[in-house]
Amino acid sequence: MRAVLLTDLLSQALSEANPVPMQRQIYDVIRRAVLDHSLVAGQKLPSSRALAEELGVSRITVSLAYDRLIAENYLTASTGSGTFVAATTDLPLAGKSEASHARHTMALSQRGTMIGTLPGGLQQFHGAFVPGVPDASLFPFHLWRRLVSRHIGKGDLALAGYAADGGGLPALRQAVASYLKISRSVVCDPEQVIITAGTHQSIDLCARMLADPGDMAVIENPCHWAFPTVLAAAGMQIGAGVVDEGGLSLAASHVPRHARLVVTSPSHQYPTGVVMPLARRLELLQGARDHNLWVMEDDYDSEFRYDGTPLPSLQGLDSDARVIYVGTFSKAMFAGIRLGYLVVPAHLAQAFASASARIYRPGQLHIQAALADYIDEGHFAQHIRRMRVEYGERQQLLRTSLARALGDSITLSEARAGLHLFMRFNLPLDAAVLHARAVEEKLVLGVPRFIGARPDIDGRSVVLGFGGVPQDHIARGVNGLKRAVERTLGRR
Amino acid sequence: MRAVLLTDLLSQALSEANPVPMQRQIYDVIRRAVLDHSLVAGQKLPSSRALAEELGVSRITVSLAYDRLIAENYLTASTGSGTFVAATTDLPLAGKSEASHARHTMALSQRGTMIGTLPGGLQQFHGAFVPGVPDASLFPFHLWRRLVSRHIGKGDLALAGYAADGGGLPALRQAVASYLKISRSVVCDPEQVIITAGTHQSIDLCARMLADPGDMAVIENPCHWAFPTVLAAAGMQIGAGVVDEGGLSLAASHVPRHARLVVTSPSHQYPTGVVMPLARRLELLQGARDHNLWVMEDDYDSEFRYDGTPLPSLQGLDSDARVIYVGTFSKAMFAGIRLGYLVVPAHLAQAFASASARIYRPGQLHIQAALADYIDEGHFAQHIRRMRVEYGERQQLLRTSLARALGDSITLSEARAGLHLFMRFNLPLDAAVLHARAVEEKLVLGVPRFIGARPDIDGRSVVLGFGGVPQDHIARGVNGLKRAVERTLGRR
Repeated sequence: MRAVLLTDLLSQALSEANPVPMQRQIYDVIRRAVLDHSLVAGQKLPSSRALAEELGVSRITVSLAYDRLIAENYLTASTGSGTFVAATTDLPLAGKSEASHARHTMALSQRGTMIGTLPGGLQQFHGAFVPGVPDASLFPFHLWRRLVSRHIGKGDLALAGYAADGGGLPALRQAVASYLKISRSVVCDPEQVIITAGTHQSIDLCARMLADPGDMAVIENPCHWAFPTVLAAAGMQIGAGVVDEGGLSLAASHVPRHARLVVTSPSHQYPTGVVMPLARRLELLQGARDHNLWVMEDDYDSEFRYDGTPLPSLQGLDSDARVIYVGTFSKAMFAGIRLGYLVVPAHLAQAFASASARIYRPGQLHIQAALADYIDEGHFAQHIRRMRVEYGERQQLLRTSLARALGDSITLSEARAGLHLFMRFNLPLDAAVLHARAVEEKLVLGVPRFIGARPDIDGRSVVLGFGGVPQDHIARGVNGLKRAVERTLGRR
Repeated sequence: MRAVLLTDLLSQALSEANPVPMQRQIYDVIRRAVLDHSLVAGQKLPSSRALAEELGVSRITVSLAYDRLIAENYLTASTGSGTFVAATTDLPLAGKSEASHARHTMALSQRGTMIGTLPGGLQQFHGAFVPGVPDASLFPFHLWRRLVSRHIGKGDLALAGYAADGGGLPALRQAVASYLKISRSVVCDPEQVIITAGTHQSIDLCARMLADPGDMAVIENPCHWAFPTVLAAAGMQIGAGVVDEGGLSLAASHVPRHARLVVTSPSHQYPTGVVMPLARRLELLQGARDHNLWVMEDDYDSEFRYDGTPLPSLQGLDSDARVIYVGTFSKAMFAGIRLGYLVVPAHLAQAFASASARIYRPGQLHIQAALADYIDEGHFAQHIRRMRVEYGERQQLLRTSLARALGDSITLSEARAGLHLFMRFNLPLDAAVLHARAVEEKLVLGVPRFIGARPDIDGRSVVLGFGGVPQDHIARGVNGLKRAVERTLGRR
């Protein structure tokens, strides 16, 4: 390209209507021309005065563009002799066409490809019958806003930094420990509480600290998708744990020698809704001891029981420091808060906190401080009490409506607890077809995630969330569900 | 234990001064006695009336405690014959002494133990000369508070949920893409921007998606601790990349066949401060092509250059979709915000977003929405402009003060950029001793992290952060540093 062509190129590309400053436009055109070898190494450029005249812009504009290109080594300047395309630009990189891009495109790793095949969550967070979410419309955001605002500022600049202790803000760890002691019979010091960015991070931290790649995690079948997904993404193999009418039974499950971890939700098995009785809890702990397993206790919705005080946690029954308790604020507050916690055995507390600091570098202390206040000032307990009444009514209404609409053709989970019902059909029905029919009724049904064979419920069970469904929408939703069931069965 | 002993146990344990309600105190004592087998399976308990009289409490208090213990299967009740310890409690779990706990304590995995040995960060985030942090005291928190408050509420309830797209809030991805295009010559669509919870999560996501366990990452030597730590915690091997006066040289580095990824900070090498010239950038991209490597470009502090416009990114020079650009808001805003981003090649964008949704389940959309506004309304650019002036003055003052105090005995990094200087001693000196002496002067010096041998600078170089040091503290800090150096050299 001769110099006159550069001028042509610039004349065509530059535009006064373009909001990008003229100096930057000139820079961009020349830089691109150097990189795609339209301008070749050693080539002389017009003087800034000559180019400015050609383009009808001020000389300083061209000079500044040249200066930057020289500073960045695209051009070189030699006093007295002029400005040249730098010799170092003559490298084989530049000037690939779109077609050659495709040829060179690298692919994901095997791990990255595998992660794409793992179960994921729904992308809808309200309406009938999205599972796993509370009703954000009833959350006292005006109060939350005030608490968050209280801490964003220059009063305590340490809150603008990283968490000095990877376990989280001390005030929040203290508040969680006090809450758990009273409400969940969880026995712990605040140092054993590790604040995380939600249950996914909690699972990831446990997998990395307690298991090596290739170790197996025995997970309840069916389960919440987060466990197989996050554990597999951390290199663990996944085994199916047998769930019966007493919840997880280790005795009935295949536990190979490389099993290292068992995951359970004894308070309210997800998704089947079974509450594990005391005897089974003790048996599970004994089984974990026999097989030398860590126990992850997922207590995801234990705040919500509608027929009395919740059962005490497995952690509170553990006498040899093998239970890791997993809690979240996503159910008792709102999903997007993304704060959860682990309660780890005392001898692991320091290792977990410092690993969290290393691999996650936590911060967000304004939010952690607001949450500590929210608990300490009683708002947390108050909101739970209020929502317990509301969700209890929703569950009862959903039970009644479903019984009226579907009668003997279904069996519902029994526990008066949580934010969902597990509904099993007592007649042959293709759940995949039902899901499609439900979408036509503008309904979203939860899908149980299976790890191994469960012919008794696989394909004929769905999860119905009611946390995000106001009472006056429940009857309408059940009517839609009834129509979807009838059309699935070919009765209409 | 006979029944009369239970009464004794209760009499001793119960206290009206205890803020825990009496009914809960009774419950706790009996529950513990069942679990430690002080009360044995089948044993009969006194009637609620008899126990209430013995204890001097109301009968309803005892009845409620019994009811809960029965509901939770610790006790059983048989109409007419009384209340008994449940048979199911007769399992070998309970009643471990503290001593036996220790015998059964399980240990961390090999991976968990390894993580504890990886480099970590400082736990101090202000003062002379903590590296890597901006000055939070100059951040407009009043404005930030207003933007965050604007979004916490019921106006847009979707912000209270999880991120529907794992890549982050669309408005924020758009804002970042626009900013990067103008400021950093980064070529991308908003879909290629993946919002993360900071650089640690950015690195973790790249390791999982682009590398398999056992693959090697070639990392600049020295480097920021986050890279070897997070990549090793994700199963990668770490190799040392040679850093010379032009920054990373792949040609001079050992790149084995299982190398899959190279990490570089071309804009302002951390910590040495070298700015990679254009020729080396092109050579690096060619080398990456020859070795079939992904390139992670860490552009951690590129907002801060004090002698003209920043160099364009490596990503903008990349013509075959192998550069992953890593950015953060922790330097340009405040450390604890914990939001960062990746710019990934277009063909990876969907896979990265959906993997993020699966393994991290991101949320915190109130903060993401506030940040989008902060950028779109021009506050981000304005704060950077203001801080660029301030940090430029701090760096100049620190350079001048150091030259005056330590003269020819030191060499400083040359780039007018960033939030730190790299200081190398031109005489034999034990940096470990210097660090201890500096602490006595209430100074914190940054420690360069080495991956392989660097006898030219290892043990005789330190990192001096000035981002968090007001100008009127710089001279005082340098005086303290001078004393520390003199005492290290034994001159005082």
